[in-house]
Amino acid sequence: AMDGAPPPTSPTGLSAYVAVSQLLGLTLLATTGAWLGRYRGGVAWHSPLQFNAHPLCMVLGMVFLQGDALLVYRVFRHEAKRSTKALHVLLHGLALVIALVGIIAVFESHRTKGIPDMYSLHSWCGMAAFVLYLLQWLLGCGFFLFPGTSFMLRGRYKPQHIFFGIALFILSITSCLLGITEMLLFKISDSYSHFVPEGILANTLGVLLVAFGLVVSYVLTREEWKRPPLAEEMALSMDFKTLTEGESPGG
Amino acid sequence: AMDGAPPPTSPTGLSAYVAVSQLLGLTLLATTGAWLGRYRGGVAWHSPLQFNAHPLCMVLGMVFLQGDALLVYRVFRHEAKRSTKALHVLLHGLALVIALVGIIAVFESHRTKGIPDMYSLHSWCGMAAFVLYLLQWLLGCGFFLFPGTSFMLRGRYKPQHIFFGIALFILSITSCLLGITEMLLFKISDSYSHFVPEGILANTLGVLLVAFGLVVSYVLTREEWKRPPLAEEMALSMDFKTLTEGESPGG
Repeated sequence: AMDGAPPPTSPTGLSAYVAVSQLLGLTLLATTGAWLGRYRGGVAWHSPLQFNAHPLCMVLGMVFLQGDALLVYRVFRHEAKRSTKALHVLLHGLALVIALVGIIAVFESHRTKGIPDMYSLHSWCGMAAFVLYLLQWLLGCGFFLFPGTSFMLRGRYKPQHIFFGIALFILSITSCLLGITEMLLFKISDSYSHFVPEGILANTLGVLLVAFGLVVSYVLTREEWKRPPLAEEMALSMDFKTLTEGESPGG
Repeated sequence: AMDGAPPPTSPTGLSAYVAVSQLLGLTLLATTGAWLGRYRGGVAWHSPLQFNAHPLCMVLGMVFLQGDALLVYRVFRHEAKRSTKALHVLLHGLALVIALVGIIAVFESHRTKGIPDMYSLHSWCGMAAFVLYLLQWLLGCGFFLFPGTSFMLRGRYKPQHIFFGIALFILSITSCLLGITEMLLFKISDSYSHFVPEGILANTLGVLLVAFGLVVSYVLTREEWKRPPLAEEMALSMDFKTLTEGESPGG
C-alpha cells in the first residue's frame, strides 16, 4: 500500500470463510491420518503399507493444496498480482508433485500385490482429474507466465482457466469420495453396514471433503469477494482497453 | 417479442452447448436403462427387482430433470420471466417426486432383504442432497413465488439460491457416482477388475454423468450467457433502484 493510505481491508465475511476453510482443510488431513493410523496400520513406503500413502497424498495434494492455491487471489487481495501469481503456480506445482507420489504409491502397491490397474470408476475419475490438472497447470503457465502471450489472449483464456480450475477441484474431491467408498468396501465390507467406528470415521472424512469443497467454491464464486484490480493495474488495463477497443476508460 | 422487432437471437455457442447437454442427458438415461435391463434383470416395483428403480429414478430426477430445470433461464431467455419461473419450479418439483419414488424403492428393497439403511457414504451424500434440494425448493417458492416477499429480500437471496442450486446439482451427481461404485462392488466384485463389459458400461455411465454436470455448469456460469432482463423488467428494476437506492437509472 502507498504511504499515508489507509490500510486495505477485506470484505466482511471473507476472512471468516477463509478461516473456516483452513480449519476444515486441517481437520481433513487429521481425519485422513487418524483413519490410516488407527485402522489401517499407518503409512510407509517400501512395505505392505505403501498403498496408504495414496489416500494421504491425494487428500493433501489434490484437495488441500489445490484448494488453497485457488484461494490465494482472494486471501492476498492487496498484494501485487505478480507475487500472488507466483504463489498460485507454486502451490499448484507442489500439489501436482505430491499427487504424483500418491499415484506412484498405488501403482507400485498394485504391482506388488498383483492387483490390476485402472479398472474402477475411482481410477478413471481420479486419473482424468490428475492429467487434466497437469494440463491446466501447463496451459496456465503458457498463458499467464510466458511473456510472449498477448493481453488479449490472456483475457480470453482467463474465464476458461477459472471455470476448469474449479471444475477440476470438484472432480478431485469426487474422486476422493469414490476412493473412500472403494476402500471401505474392500477392507470392511462385512462390518460397514453395522456402523462400525472405522466406517463412521471414513464417511465423516467424506462429509468434510464435501464441506471443504463447498466453502472454497463459495469464496471463489462470490461476486463481491473477487480480487479488485490495484490502482496501477487499473491504469494499465484502461490504457490497454483504449488501445485495443477504442473505448473510453471506465470503471 | 414486440411487433416489428427483429426476432430475438441466442448468443453464439449457447444453442450448441444446450444441444450437447440434452444429448448427454438422453444418453445418460439410455445407459442407465441398458445397465439395469441387460445386466441387472430390469426394473419392477413389487419384486426383487424393486431396488433397480432406485438408480433409474435418481438419474432421471436428481440429474436429468434437475439439470434441465437449472437450464430453463438460459434456454428460454426471451420468454416472460413469469412463464420461465413456472417451468423452473415445476421441473424441480417433478424431479423431487421422482427422486422420492427412487428413495422409497431402496428403503423398501432393503426392508424386504433385511439390509440396514443409511450406513454408507453414498447414502449420507445422497440423503443430504435430497433433503437440501427439497429445502432449496421450498425456500425458492417462499422467496420468489410468495407475493409478499420484497424485491430487496429476493435480490439478496438470489445469489445464494443460484450458488446452492449448482452445488446441490453437483452433489447429486457425486452421489450417483458413489452409488455406481457401491453397486459394482456389491454385484460384480470378483469380475470388476477383469474389465468385464458390465463394469465398463457402468464406469461409462459415471463418465457421462460427469460430462453432463460439466456442460450444464458451463452453460450456467458463463457470464455472456446469463439471461438478459427484458425491456419491461429493466424499466421495473430501474424504477425500483431509483426508489430504494436513490441512484440514477443506469445499464
